[in-house]
Amino acid sequence: MGYRERSWWGWGHADEALDDAACRRLAERALRPWLPIDGSVIPLPFDPLLPPPRLIPPSIMAEAFLADSMSRAAHAYGKAFRDVVRALHGELPNPPDLVCLPRTVHDIVAALDWAEAAGAAVVPYGGGSSVVGGVEYRGERPWVSLDLSRLNRIAEIDEVNRAVRVQAGVFGPALEEALRPHDLTLRHFPQSFEFSTVGGWLATRSGGHFATGPTRIDDFVEALRVVTPQGPVESPRLPATGAGPDPNGLFLGSEGALGVIVEAWLRVQRRPTLKSSAAVGFPVYSHGVAAVKEIVQAGLRPANCRLLDPVEAMLNAGATDGQARLMLGFEGPDAVLLPGALEICRDHGGTETERSSGSFRDAFLKAPYTRDALVRLGLIVETVETACTWSHFEALHADVLAAAQRAAPARVAVVTCRFTHVYPDGPAPYFTIITPGRRGAEVAIWDEIKAAVSDAITSNGGTITHHHAVGRDHRPWYDGERSPLFHDALRAAKRTLDPRGILNPGVLV
Amino acid sequence: MGYRERSWWGWGHADEALDDAACRRLAERALRPWLPIDGSVIPLPFDPLLPPPRLIPPSIMAEAFLADSMSRAAHAYGKAFRDVVRALHGELPNPPDLVCLPRTVHDIVAALDWAEAAGAAVVPYGGGSSVVGGVEYRGERPWVSLDLSRLNRIAEIDEVNRAVRVQAGVFGPALEEALRPHDLTLRHFPQSFEFSTVGGWLATRSGGHFATGPTRIDDFVEALRVVTPQGPVESPRLPATGAGPDPNGLFLGSEGALGVIVEAWLRVQRRPTLKSSAAVGFPVYSHGVAAVKEIVQAGLRPANCRLLDPVEAMLNAGATDGQARLMLGFEGPDAVLLPGALEICRDHGGTETERSSGSFRDAFLKAPYTRDALVRLGLIVETVETACTWSHFEALHADVLAAAQRAAPARVAVVTCRFTHVYPDGPAPYFTIITPGRRGAEVAIWDEIKAAVSDAITSNGGTITHHHAVGRDHRPWYDGERSPLFHDALRAAKRTLDPRGILNPGVLV
Repeated sequence: MGYRERSWWGWGHADEALDDAACRRLAERALRPWLPIDGSVIPLPFDPLLPPPRLIPPSIMAEAFLADSMSRAAHAYGKAFRDVVRALHGELPNPPDLVCLPRTVHDIVAALDWAEAAGAAVVPYGGGSSVVGGVEYRGERPWVSLDLSRLNRIAEIDEVNRAVRVQAGVFGPALEEALRPHDLTLRHFPQSFEFSTVGGWLATRSGGHFATGPTRIDDFVEALRVVTPQGPVESPRLPATGAGPDPNGLFLGSEGALGVIVEAWLRVQRRPTLKSSAAVGFPVYSHGVAAVKEIVQAGLRPANCRLLDPVEAMLNAGATDGQARLMLGFEGPDAVLLPGALEICRDHGGTETERSSGSFRDAFLKAPYTRDALVRLGLIVETVETACTWSHFEALHADVLAAAQRAAPARVAVVTCRFTHVYPDGPAPYFTIITPGRRGAEVAIWDEIKAAVSDAITSNGGTITHHHAVGRDHRPWYDGERSPLFHDALRAAKRTLDPRGILNPGVLV
Repeated sequence: MGYRERSWWGWGHADEALDDAACRRLAERALRPWLPIDGSVIPLPFDPLLPPPRLIPPSIMAEAFLADSMSRAAHAYGKAFRDVVRALHGELPNPPDLVCLPRTVHDIVAALDWAEAAGAAVVPYGGGSSVVGGVEYRGERPWVSLDLSRLNRIAEIDEVNRAVRVQAGVFGPALEEALRPHDLTLRHFPQSFEFSTVGGWLATRSGGHFATGPTRIDDFVEALRVVTPQGPVESPRLPATGAGPDPNGLFLGSEGALGVIVEAWLRVQRRPTLKSSAAVGFPVYSHGVAAVKEIVQAGLRPANCRLLDPVEAMLNAGATDGQARLMLGFEGPDAVLLPGALEICRDHGGTETERSSGSFRDAFLKAPYTRDALVRLGLIVETVETACTWSHFEALHADVLAAAQRAAPARVAVVTCRFTHVYPDGPAPYFTIITPGRRGAEVAIWDEIKAAVSDAITSNGGTITHHHAVGRDHRPWYDGERSPLFHDALRAAKRTLDPRGILNPGVLV
């Protein structure tokens, strides 16, 4: 990364953001029919000018620290809707006092020692693509954003055992580029792929974009190396073990609160050559749901199994027939299993339709730029996602739609749903919510919608997050989801590894 | 269970143990050619008569406690070689003072409260099939074996979402019998299947007998309910979640040291109708290893992929051609993928051979009875297992064989190897070691061999256990395998959940 300028306020590369004219064209051509917008565009923010930091970097490693306003502003937030809109409005009341960019594990150890002594909080930062307030410290202490992007070495590619030893700060594209000459791939493509790191994926239990099989980053982990304020923790590199509770499990999803993940051994795969795919239309949405359920319960493991509800199918797959769409794909030896899945679809009233041209993955990766344009057009646009059992899905889906509508201004919201992942025992539905905002009240309006839909999710047996992590924004619902004694056990682990509580305070415990 | 008498000293049902004549026939027909044995048979032990217990059961739930010698003796050990031989010789120096058989979760809460007050240790006990000293308390305190076999309710079968809510004390056959009318199966068949429980599987991260795909009990867990001395811990029932570190992961493999697992929601499957299988002979063992590696790395997921080395193939598959044997099987939609796997085998010099008649699973489940007969014939017979990367396997295999030979009396041991599970990054080799014992010195001799092979395993990058758990016998090597700080974090969790340290002391931390 780094040779193209990253946007400090919005998604990705600054030069890929839609300019004012493009925003207005988007409004005119795509949005007017759907949503009451006036076409005015929130101007791009001025370069930030922040109050001086409350911390002085340690002199022995001062070159690892940045204190300029732009760097600090760029590390103040993640990339959720509420982050982008606040940055657009220049609202940066609690930016990091310093940004630390360690080059080595030793730098991290030194930075943690220094922070403990200085009474500073330390928030580990990968690509900064959190959508749950995971990298935004909200407490009173002075704080440091610990940006791991210089810890970007791909240390070893083991072709025999199909694994890669990689440092935490490596971004998705760099990892795939290094693997490609070996005809290998991690095959982990979260939407943030271009702007998130291996360490971030591990700390947040990131979900890849494949629907079944090994897709969550957890599935690829052989071993982790973590630096805690009390010292290093390493797990052994093994294909599998039954020796005690899984040590990796303590750090996967720990969101920087138990330690700084610095390196991992990850399983990689030969790039699949065989692929088969199809699109299926379902006149009745619930029949599509039943077909997907039967496909996964039959033991089929489609790489793609995205069921789009009729609105999502119209907006994102150009389907104007009012039908739901199932995008099906199989890879590798499973490519021959597509016909069996299509037969199940036909049994449920599905008909094969033309596949939309263009790569879903490309569109998927570019979607956040469009999101930023919608934000500049004054819309509230955000996603929520969950997983629940099949039995819970129908009511959860209905309640999320109703809750979003009820909480939206003027009770008008476009809410769409697709399945991102499917399991034999239930789907992972992903909702997109778009509704007009009100200048200056965007965050308050969204927070109200978010609370309403989160209540609808958790009261219908859904988890508060299938793959967006907990951060600060999901904490109330996460606390309702886990047992108090498990919380106590995590707190005890935290006290052991981070006795002064400097690591990402406010997250996890 | 219960309608047929369980053996207190050896495996399974007392009436399935080989009698003296059968032991002698086995010696004459199968063993003489291989091993220097004299054909004498260790007599069956007398019924045990133990010193009086050091604990008095609480009067309000006295009916849940047993204090008779036979019950206490039957709960003194697991079923490892060293357990069976000690019981055969009547060596029972530290049996439980009481056996507690709770009928309800409330009974367990009351029993833990009582034990805390009485200063007693509590060792959770499922089917008692541990082969690692997991249920054998070796400390000084008076102790209670908490036998969960009366907590045997199958509370709910959810056909829609393919899951079952089951109490910890349910044995394998009872669970499968309950699922069969629904055409469902857990499809988890550890060798101890008949004589182990759901709770035991969960507490020890048991491995099923399928070679790939969901096979370890961890893979089937939706939710757990655990009783700790500080109160209950429950995880939510979800197909998947990314919310924080996995709470199930703390208790899977905790071997009764962090809490008593009392109930679980487990994923079940439709019974597969399609199956395909084949046996392949490899003149060169390492070529078979290479074929298996290529099969799993190609993304094929055979249900069975047992590679037997030439000695194992001769002893357990009747192969007299000196070749290694690969037993391959595919199930469900994958049944069509067998030809692809066979092609890979041919590329590596394999030739399809006749499959041995008879069910492997039946023979597999009966093997422990034969083991007991061999013990009575004065042999040392035990297994060790591990998992390692493909790169490590050749040296690990050679070193385990050499270490066993070196440590065996007269340096003569039959050592065989098969793969029980295979992963893209490495196999799980399972070694059987048979060598003549010396009356009265069996345990000492085995412990020496065990130490030698365990050192050979861990010094070659293998885990001390792929699926037999740690218990007390594997502790030294487990402690070498995990980071000291992870140990500290587990200890902190233990102090939080079990502040007086009554649960299975000596295990885990």
